[in-house]
Amino acid sequence: MAGVRQDRRRVVIEAARPVVESGRFAAKACAGVPLEISADVFAHGHDRVLAWVRWGRPQAPQAWREARLSHDINDRFSGWITPRRLGDLAFEIVAAVDDWGSWLHGAGAKLAARQTIDLDLEEGALLALGRIRTGINAADRRALRALAAVLRNASLAPRARLREAATQRSGRLLERTLDRSGATVEGPHPVLVERELAGFSAWYEMFPRSEGAEPPRSGTLYTASRRLPSIAQMGFDIVYLPPIHPIGTVNRKGPGNSLAAGPDDVGSPWAIGSAGGGHTAINSDLGTLQDFDSFVGGAHALGLEVALDYALQCAPDHPWVTEHPEWFATRPDGSVRYAENPPKRYEDIYPIDFETRDWRRLWNALRDVLLFWCGHGVSVFRVDNPHTKPLHFWEWVISEVRRRHPGTIFLAEAFTRPKVMHRLAKAGFSQSYTYFTWRTAKWELEEYLGELSTPPGVDYFRPCFWPNTPDILHASLQYGGPAAFRLRLILAAFGAASWGMYSGYELAENVAVREGSEEYLNSEKYELRPRDFGRADSLAPLVGRVNEVRRVHRGAMTQMARLHLHHIDNDALICFSRSSPGNEDVLLVIVNLDPHAAQDGSTWLDLEALGIPPNRPYEAHDELTDTTYVWHGPRNYVRLDPGHQAGHVLHLRKR
Amino acid sequence: MAGVRQDRRRVVIEAARPVVESGRFAAKACAGVPLEISADVFAHGHDRVLAWVRWGRPQAPQAWREARLSHDINDRFSGWITPRRLGDLAFEIVAAVDDWGSWLHGAGAKLAARQTIDLDLEEGALLALGRIRTGINAADRRALRALAAVLRNASLAPRARLREAATQRSGRLLERTLDRSGATVEGPHPVLVERELAGFSAWYEMFPRSEGAEPPRSGTLYTASRRLPSIAQMGFDIVYLPPIHPIGTVNRKGPGNSLAAGPDDVGSPWAIGSAGGGHTAINSDLGTLQDFDSFVGGAHALGLEVALDYALQCAPDHPWVTEHPEWFATRPDGSVRYAENPPKRYEDIYPIDFETRDWRRLWNALRDVLLFWCGHGVSVFRVDNPHTKPLHFWEWVISEVRRRHPGTIFLAEAFTRPKVMHRLAKAGFSQSYTYFTWRTAKWELEEYLGELSTPPGVDYFRPCFWPNTPDILHASLQYGGPAAFRLRLILAAFGAASWGMYSGYELAENVAVREGSEEYLNSEKYELRPRDFGRADSLAPLVGRVNEVRRVHRGAMTQMARLHLHHIDNDALICFSRSSPGNEDVLLVIVNLDPHAAQDGSTWLDLEALGIPPNRPYEAHDELTDTTYVWHGPRNYVRLDPGHQAGHVLHLRKR
Repeated sequence: MAGVRQDRRRVVIEAARPVVESGRFAAKACAGVPLEISADVFAHGHDRVLAWVRWGRPQAPQAWREARLSHDINDRFSGWITPRRLGDLAFEIVAAVDDWGSWLHGAGAKLAARQTIDLDLEEGALLALGRIRTGINAADRRALRALAAVLRNASLAPRARLREAATQRSGRLLERTLDRSGATVEGPHPVLVERELAGFSAWYEMFPRSEGAEPPRSGTLYTASRRLPSIAQMGFDIVYLPPIHPIGTVNRKGPGNSLAAGPDDVGSPWAIGSAGGGHTAINSDLGTLQDFDSFVGGAHALGLEVALDYALQCAPDHPWVTEHPEWFATRPDGSVRYAENPPKRYEDIYPIDFETRDWRRLWNALRDVLLFWCGHGVSVFRVDNPHTKPLHFWEWVISEVRRRHPGTIFLAEAFTRPKVMHRLAKAGFSQSYTYFTWRTAKWELEEYLGELSTPPGVDYFRPCFWPNTPDILHASLQYGGPAAFRLRLILAAFGAASWGMYSGYELAENVAVREGSEEYLNSEKYELRPRDFGRADSLAPLVGRVNEVRRVHRGAMTQMARLHLHHIDNDALICFSRSSPGNEDVLLVIVNLDPHAAQDGSTWLDLEALGIPPNRPYEAHDELTDTTYVWHGPRNYVRLDPGHQAGHVLHLRKR
Repeated sequence: MAGVRQDRRRVVIEAARPVVESGRFAAKACAGVPLEISADVFAHGHDRVLAWVRWGRPQAPQAWREARLSHDINDRFSGWITPRRLGDLAFEIVAAVDDWGSWLHGAGAKLAARQTIDLDLEEGALLALGRIRTGINAADRRALRALAAVLRNASLAPRARLREAATQRSGRLLERTLDRSGATVEGPHPVLVERELAGFSAWYEMFPRSEGAEPPRSGTLYTASRRLPSIAQMGFDIVYLPPIHPIGTVNRKGPGNSLAAGPDDVGSPWAIGSAGGGHTAINSDLGTLQDFDSFVGGAHALGLEVALDYALQCAPDHPWVTEHPEWFATRPDGSVRYAENPPKRYEDIYPIDFETRDWRRLWNALRDVLLFWCGHGVSVFRVDNPHTKPLHFWEWVISEVRRRHPGTIFLAEAFTRPKVMHRLAKAGFSQSYTYFTWRTAKWELEEYLGELSTPPGVDYFRPCFWPNTPDILHASLQYGGPAAFRLRLILAAFGAASWGMYSGYELAENVAVREGSEEYLNSEKYELRPRDFGRADSLAPLVGRVNEVRRVHRGAMTQMARLHLHHIDNDALICFSRSSPGNEDVLLVIVNLDPHAAQDGSTWLDLEALGIPPNRPYEAHDELTDTTYVWHGPRNYVRLDPGHQAGHVLHLRKR
């Protein structure tokens, strides 16, 4: 048995947060968004302790800033920092015995019990004088001597002397001059600081070929750009385009994923590559690279960022298949291995063989695709099926891109097992698609919101809630009518800090290819789908209002860890709050999960969590309808008729 | 931003257990007791993975043993190892892509879908032949070639060829010959292996001076040794003696903790040290060191181990106070600082000043006290108030003793805040006192049992349940009559793997010093308390039976992590199971928490957790009453009348 070192540090620091797998991965933060730092800090016996967080750039610990952590409950200390610079940040926890605070507490307790404290006052004076040593400035030396003199001033009553020791000024003096040579330091722990958009965003997905299409004539990047103003008006931050590259012609899929495509069939954008080029080319039906640059420019002018799809697979006629045959696996008969998930076959897709002996060149080429588009103003990537590519590849390639373009944001389309989904987030993805799309019952939504807002996940996994995608039209939308679209919209937009929708959602498109399927009828994946977005019944105004409310309350919306579930006594109603640090800004969201009938019930709010006094009325202002209610206490009646309103988004204010 | 290394290992291993704070501390195990090892193991995509645990002495990794882990659910793999040698053990998780299993699965799925598998069979042959390389023995080479030949044997049907590949023999061959050069290794993680007694024990506490006392004449170690046979007969493993050292005479406390002691007053054994000696001396009232050796010898002959109290504090007349004044803090007036918790004062106790500049000599002296008693056959120490001494001291001193006496067991009397209590367990204490004594309602018992049987605590914190101690006579015992003593006995003995009781419990002593106090009337801490243990209403027979049942079912009782709570539809009844790995041995414990009235209700058992088929009758044999019930399914009626039986301890057996 190995010997144990004789360690004399008195304070122990444990369970610091946010820390991901003991620091193997970085926790996530956003520039300008307050980040809570916390840890268990304690010593043996009855001594009080002081704790601080120190943070800054890992390379320059001498320039780190420092803030006090305060004791919450049960030896947990916490405080807030606000990172400003993108990239790597590190923090450490520092803690020391609070000899002055311990002494003050003991002397005060004796005084209250009418015990004599003469010796204690002298001990306090000695403590103060003990602070005087090399490195203490002249003003503090004088202040320490003066404090000691007061404590020894027999002409003052003991109570008066102790009062002087108990002032805030004395406390700060004694804290400032504390000898930290015996302090415990825990860390440093890595944090990745991204742009606020990485943690707070609204996405709009559209197929540019459908926008302005007149079948069989494809829409173009130019015609699609005409949709940008209305997307911006709906309050979205990001417009996401499925792959815009040449689409393979070999084994091209026809409408409804049929095996044979006709001459006019446009194919799946995810079957990337043809004689026209590969992952850095533009499908000529959509236009040219210049057209793309114009599209990006137009988006930026409207405050929109453009997200491209990063789908690492090739059509059989992708140039790489002939230029780099070693990047694809071959079968014993010499044929290239197409994608399979036995017994399913995907003959129009060749997976890339990450096990190739030429992997270094491959990895570099894949990275260079991202860098190419970064060079064309793309700041956001939606990554297709990242869970079918090596986990370590993502960790490397994301860091490679971030080194050069620190603001780049990556969304993982990882509809896979929970552990894999989480590992991708740890590896560096800014956001992830989630199981939200399939969580419709109150109990499963509560369970999921609870999981997403608590450690360990909340420290690195940023959910992006999508009520629909081109692949997923959930049954609840197929059969719930427009009310279902409204309620899922509110849940998505206020349940997570980021959300997105696929075009057509605002039109409540709800027809599946067949009963029991989540595929759309006439799936846009294989066909042009021009739409009449000007329809009077469009949900666009509601979408716009929802995104506007999110922005007004970004201080609350960006704090996923502060999402709090509240009881409401109806299984068709869900109630949760979002709040900023210190409850400066509090939203209470109540949604009727039943799209078919009005539901009512009474809340039982956790007022303490909301920072609302239990015995005074407060205002609940519905941000969607501009109605104000005066509420009182935890119990308040709510009724939601899905025909009129799917949910309340209430801004709670003390009166 | 730092660059990320290009890592090509395909399999990821996360959240291995048991691991305490990323390996900063050792997890706990017992020699001969199966220990579950588990981890999340997964790769990207659809490939299957294989995982193993390797374990052994940290110094000799080349001699480590290996066992396969099997997949449970949700990418979690687990298996069991049984440590044999006391001291440090290390384990690591190894995992690799299961190319053979993945291939077999894919080919099987295609065959089932009536697709052709000719190419797949050839790929299987190439996989088998690919295993042949340096280091593969001749027999395996032959077997691999033979398997490849079968897969290529066109005269056999594809189905027949695949069947040969799918045999267990082929699976073992391909696993054995797998090239692990690309495998992922996670660890090593430290585990401390203690004796089984460290994790499975029944303690009996007695004041030897009371045993055979004829006040004012003290009992002695000799008279106390006459009680040992009945303690052994009650099935206890450990007899624990409060401090047996000379008791201070300066400021000695009288009966009921009064400030003035009379000449006949025996004082508190925890006020250690007088002119007669200190922590390595024997109180002359009790006898001599030879008497102590005889006491230990007598205990050992009965299969009992002797636990001493390790209380690091001194009476004012302890020899150390004059020999080592620097080990005690002095106040500004030159007086030695006595113990205080303002406004409370303990003038009969001087705390040791661990901040002394002479700390190295002090620590060594404190360690040598333990080594002294180890030299006299003491194998177990109950440590008094360890939370008021430096946490790092415990880590050091326990390791120092274990290096020389690896079987030594330490019980922490840390009735303190949860984080501190847990830290002491991490630092090396074998067992800890708990909050059990104050958990009496069903919801709080369920919550506490849940916490104690789940990670992270269950990997290092071993609870020892005490229904009473000389300091704690809980109100539920004061007012619940003998029925309360019976029910708390069953809860303590079957709720944890270790439990203990303080003498007098078997006589249901229930008189407190005053209403609202947990102190005993005529507390034995300050007085001699001879008792008539032969009373007809003694609970000793029940205690004996309880300890006997525990021993018979030690396979279940030692697996705290397998404790499982079951629903029972009465808030006065609690139901939980204890089970061995694989449910070879299953106990179901049902206790009536109401000592005043009969309670009945129906269980709703989690039969899957118990390994019991849902549709067949099974036997429930009450180990306390030797009654057998035939049960069927999850729902079974139970009625417990506290006048007759406080609880069921049912051994469940399939019929």
